[in-house]
Amino acid sequence: MAGSTFGRALRVTTAGESHGPGNIVIVDGCPPGIVIDAEAIQMELDRRRPGQSALVTQRKEPDHCEILSGVYDGRSTGTPIAILVRNKDAKSKDYSAIANKYRPGHADHSYDAKFGIRDPRGGGRASARETVSRVAAGAIAKKIIAEAFGGEVLGYVVQVGDIHAEVPEAVTREQVESRPDGSFNPVRCPDPEASLKMEKLIKKVRKEKDSIGGVAEIVGRGVPAGLGEPVFDKLKADLAKAIMSIPAVVGFEYGAGFAAASTRGSAHNDEFHIRDGRVITRTNRHGGILGGISTGMPLLLRAAVKPTSSLPKEQKTVTSDLEPTTIATKGRHDPCLLPRFVPMAEAMVALVIADHWLRQKHNT
Amino acid sequence: MAGSTFGRALRVTTAGESHGPGNIVIVDGCPPGIVIDAEAIQMELDRRRPGQSALVTQRKEPDHCEILSGVYDGRSTGTPIAILVRNKDAKSKDYSAIANKYRPGHADHSYDAKFGIRDPRGGGRASARETVSRVAAGAIAKKIIAEAFGGEVLGYVVQVGDIHAEVPEAVTREQVESRPDGSFNPVRCPDPEASLKMEKLIKKVRKEKDSIGGVAEIVGRGVPAGLGEPVFDKLKADLAKAIMSIPAVVGFEYGAGFAAASTRGSAHNDEFHIRDGRVITRTNRHGGILGGISTGMPLLLRAAVKPTSSLPKEQKTVTSDLEPTTIATKGRHDPCLLPRFVPMAEAMVALVIADHWLRQKHNT
Amino acid sequence: MAGSTFGRALRVTTAGESHGPGNIVIVDGCPPGIVIDAEAIQMELDRRRPGQSALVTQRKEPDHCEILSGVYDGRSTGTPIAILVRNKDAKSKDYSAIANKYRPGHADHSYDAKFGIRDPRGGGRASARETVSRVAAGAIAKKIIAEAFGGEVLGYVVQVGDIHAEVPEAVTREQVESRPDGSFNPVRCPDPEASLKMEKLIKKVRKEKDSIGGVAEIVGRGVPAGLGEPVFDKLKADLAKAIMSIPAVVGFEYGAGFAAASTRGSAHNDEFHIRDGRVITRTNRHGGILGGISTGMPLLLRAAVKPTSSLPKEQKTVTSDLEPTTIATKGRHDPCLLPRFVPMAEAMVALVIADHWLRQKHNT
Amino acid sequence: MAGSTFGRALRVTTAGESHGPGNIVIVDGCPPGIVIDAEAIQMELDRRRPGQSALVTQRKEPDHCEILSGVYDGRSTGTPIAILVRNKDAKSKDYSAIANKYRPGHADHSYDAKFGIRDPRGGGRASARETVSRVAAGAIAKKIIAEAFGGEVLGYVVQVGDIHAEVPEAVTREQVESRPDGSFNPVRCPDPEASLKMEKLIKKVRKEKDSIGGVAEIVGRGVPAGLGEPVFDKLKADLAKAIMSIPAVVGFEYGAGFAAASTRGSAHNDEFHIRDGRVITRTNRHGGILGGISTGMPLLLRAAVKPTSSLPKEQKTVTSDLEPTTIATKGRHDPCLLPRFVPMAEAMVALVIADHWLRQKHNT
Repeated sequence: MAGSTFGRALRVTTAGESHGPGNIVIVDGCPPGIVIDAEAIQMELDRRRPGQSALVTQRKEPDHCEILSGVYDGRSTGTPIAILVRNKDAKSKDYSAIANKYRPGHADHSYDAKFGIRDPRGGGRASARETVSRVAAGAIAKKIIAEAFGGEVLGYVVQVGDIHAEVPEAVTREQVESRPDGSFNPVRCPDPEASLKMEKLIKKVRKEKDSIGGVAEIVGRGVPAGLGEPVFDKLKADLAKAIMSIPAVVGFEYGAGFAAASTRGSAHNDEFHIRDGRVITRTNRHGGILGGISTGMPLLLRAAVKPTSSLPKEQKTVTSDLEPTTIATKGRHDPCLLPRFVPMAEAMVALVIADHWLRQKHNT
Repeated sequence: MAGSTFGRALRVTTAGESHGPGNIVIVDGCPPGIVIDAEAIQMELDRRRPGQSALVTQRKEPDHCEILSGVYDGRSTGTPIAILVRNKDAKSKDYSAIANKYRPGHADHSYDAKFGIRDPRGGGRASARETVSRVAAGAIAKKIIAEAFGGEVLGYVVQVGDIHAEVPEAVTREQVESRPDGSFNPVRCPDPEASLKMEKLIKKVRKEKDSIGGVAEIVGRGVPAGLGEPVFDKLKADLAKAIMSIPAVVGFEYGAGFAAASTRGSAHNDEFHIRDGRVITRTNRHGGILGGISTGMPLLLRAAVKPTSSLPKEQKTVTSDLEPTTIATKGRHDPCLLPRFVPMAEAMVALVIADHWLRQKHNT
Repeated sequence: MAGSTFGRALRVTTAGESHGPGNIVIVDGCPPGIVIDAEAIQMELDRRRPGQSALVTQRKEPDHCEILSGVYDGRSTGTPIAILVRNKDAKSKDYSAIANKYRPGHADHSYDAKFGIRDPRGGGRASARETVSRVAAGAIAKKIIAEAFGGEVLGYVVQVGDIHAEVPEAVTREQVESRPDGSFNPVRCPDPEASLKMEKLIKKVRKEKDSIGGVAEIVGRGVPAGLGEPVFDKLKADLAKAIMSIPAVVGFEYGAGFAAASTRGSAHNDEFHIRDGRVITRTNRHGGILGGISTGMPLLLRAAVKPTSSLPKEQKTVTSDLEPTTIATKGRHDPCLLPRFVPMAEAMVALVIADHWLRQKHNT
Repeated sequence: MAGSTFGRALRVTTAGESHGPGNIVIVDGCPPGIVIDAEAIQMELDRRRPGQSALVTQRKEPDHCEILSGVYDGRSTGTPIAILVRNKDAKSKDYSAIANKYRPGHADHSYDAKFGIRDPRGGGRASARETVSRVAAGAIAKKIIAEAFGGEVLGYVVQVGDIHAEVPEAVTREQVESRPDGSFNPVRCPDPEASLKMEKLIKKVRKEKDSIGGVAEIVGRGVPAGLGEPVFDKLKADLAKAIMSIPAVVGFEYGAGFAAASTRGSAHNDEFHIRDGRVITRTNRHGGILGGISTGMPLLLRAAVKPTSSLPKEQKTVTSDLEPTTIATKGRHDPCLLPRFVPMAEAMVALVIADHWLRQKHNT
């Protein structure tokens, strides 16, 4: 029942399938007067776009966005902003042979169990194609938090397979998106050495008709203290829902995360102290959130992403008629989801921050 | 702004502070005709109760529940069920000395930043005391899913500090709550050997005026395929929000979780096959959820819980007047949150399953 | 499914039946720092209370309110405020004889159709007793709008049967609640002449074992321009829902209302002009709302209330076993609902204004 | 803040302005398997369309709808259905001269007060153009209730100015949409005599550069007993909100409505009796709703619509710079809103019925 809306004060509603006419998002609750330009939205869509590098799916989608409402003279009017991205390269024939096969790791079977009917073309609504709407909405959220308090959301890859990156706290978007030589970094990992290894691993995995998982980290900077609500709508809870709602994410942690499980309180607690008349903590094991509410320290969270389920390698499965069969996905898929996951995750984090910032205005 | 409600079709709203008159929960949307007895609710509250063993806080709360509405002749009427649990052992003087000190790891500072005013007694709304309302509501959710489809939610501790447990898939509630000799197991870990080590560690940590973190696993059995919504309200997303909204939780994963990051797709995908005319998977690395929708396999998730922030050991911090100070919490606190965390987590998982089951009736 | 919550930014959730242990309301989203005293809430409850005059039901309920949470040191903390009003004079035996008879004009039959199970004591959840929770919540809303912008909500009776009152625009609460001689006016109609006639009519109707309908008017003063949302959540739409959700209300209009149907645009439009540097209208046929958004002029609305359905007079009906029968309600009922309706309607209007004021902070 | 969504189980979100690229609606929660054809949607849009007769605005809009998602092979898939209607005849120059003039009876001033920024072209989001989205969504709701329980929603005009129609209970859509001679009835009043008088009055009013109000009645047939929720989400409350959210509506009543105010209980109550083993009432003064819940009798409600605010006649007003001015709207407007209001009101009523039917499945 009706689950395609996200957020409370900033409310995002999406619609669209992988191979239908297009994907649409309505962003309701954007404050009036924010500069909204299609170029900024397009730039984020381009970071998510298929075909952006040799490491990702070669599906060719221009992902051109059209703003349909809510903007007048380049500024938001306070009324809902609708953005349409039409689908272009919808090779439905790629999927026709497998329409009644339940692809391992995919939603085919659970959708049938839920709805009894299913758009089999490219995963339909279950396709990660729907994230085009999230990224478009996230571009608006980024504008809101930048104008409101200079906030910034930055994501990057910290793990692919067994390769782990070292990322300094002060990492910049340039370091994420570019290699040291200034060329585009298709991995979106700002540790040059690890990045090269990841690139090689992804290529190797693709050649072996396989896929590989990884971890991305997202940081929210400049977020004021006081965002989040005490009990259910804690900032950490809404961030977790936001991130876990993205396809293929199987784990979420913030601050010290799972490592805190083997830590003592005396070693885990961050001391408060004063700097420039402001309460801060020297360390940030708490990831910028205490009691579910932002502390003014940077938000720091990580998402575990499973290996792509679509594989060119043959796998055993069953059909919707309950017959055993095998399947080898012929569609064009990412051997590793992480590089394109980064803008999706940034978008969701920006939406949560903007939503909670608007909710907090209520108290001030 | 208004964040004390959880769920869509089954809607839980809570109120209450640690040292106020009591905690209250309204469960709206319970279907009519469900047997609701105060005893079943009380039994769950007793599992969460302080003072239940030597391992937990010695605060003495009877946690007696009173059903105020929505039940007639022992059955739910379909109207909202309100449950009141009065606070008894509210030793506010324990807290008076630290009212203006920002306790490390606690919400004191972020609440001040948010609200500009704060009930300092025992953490107020930020205290884990609010989970009494969740557990009461969860007892109703457990009834709903048991009556509807024989569903069961079972939690247990799998890690304390560096001690990891081995838990068989078929673990029972008896194995969780009792030691092999039939006595009450205060740790709620069903691996007898690990459990003993955990118990020793928790006692050692307490003696050292410290605290320790851990991990709990929760399994949802008998959950039919088809629960969850495609995009934002995925079952995994709502479970993540539910679990992450509990105090002290810093990480969430389901199925293979973070381990999936270093895995290949060919090794991660669970093959579908047929058993007794039903589509199942041989393995359950997907944790019972694909495309955000339940598959009919057991739900399997884990939560990382940080070490208790309140410490009898002295820590450095600041006051709300921005003066440096030190603090040693004199209140009675759990050296390890995990044993009492188990019923809280079960409650939240049961609420999500019941909510999504009611939402799914919409499609059938 | 879950329909006991009202409001977006200020969110009111209620529970309770006529003859259960009590009625409870949770007000979530009250800004921090508002002075909340039990006395102000009690004063509003007393205006709604049964037995307050010879004109209303003689059921004896002290309607004592207890604040359970969300208030510290006399001020709201920003966390949910729960208020409990226990039921006292619950003479369930009054109803036992009619438990399986469908009372004409009542919800007995539709509840059975909906839930298949029903608390027959005093109407259960369908009893106007639930409005005790609305009035308690409304008292908080009145405080919020008074502190925020000096807003005031005032209701009064303008029609009982065929008797119509003339009420000047500047009417005061004193003129509503008192007769010219200073004594309590049990009718709550500020037109002394009409009020006397109404009083006589209500007494006559009661003697004849009958009941009578009427109309109340509610005015919202000091409401700033800009409250309400463009499309679905128009101020007029949320006011209509608020008022129509009160038991026995069968009509709603604002400004000129139904009279506008026979009016021409040139006679209906209110000219804008400037007074003291502010845009106002000379007349207020628009009732303070244009395009669904407040204009800064007083809100002006009316509610039509049907005659009490419970009658001591014998009426024909059927039982839940589909047998013909007759019924004469022996319970103690109001011969005219209007005098006690006034505080209920004020409460709902105050809740809508406070909610939309908090929503509007979002834009500023 | 975010007010462009309506409904709980069937959730409608709209976006779009009068003179922007188009209007969009996302219908989330439509059950899977419903036959959705663009033709049925288009037929409803045509009933709402400008230029359909000499009585309405001559703005020329094809109002062609495009289904963007949620439908596969002619059936709903259970995922959100997005429908786009592009704007064509947007003569923005018509409005440029009045961009800074506050049109009497319009939202220009209140939008400025709310947002501080405004799309002045044709009323922007405040234009009745947004109802194109409601009518498209309503066409889907009509399909749902027709398939689910043979439900039908029918509206017609019962009053224009002082002309009142007599409409038999068994009125058909053909009698509404056609004159006795079979030709199209542009008034949508099924009383032939009154209809002719209304037509003449509307033409007269237009010639006099004025406008006129009226009343429409909407009936919901075949609605099962048990829809609606006990307290806030009563069926009558949600219907009131739905209808009052439509531009220009200033009053709502159901059943006897305002006439009940001058009626006695003994004359107002509808007796229950049994017909064909079903509980019904002989009369329907209760308009199909008791205790806020449907009784199985036809839903019967009326809406008062004010005279069009846009007038070719000169009116006094002020500018946004607080200067006195005059205005005579040159745009093409309806002299009477009622004929085109009928499909809008039907759509909103159908949405409420479908929503509450889906909510009720929860209990069964």
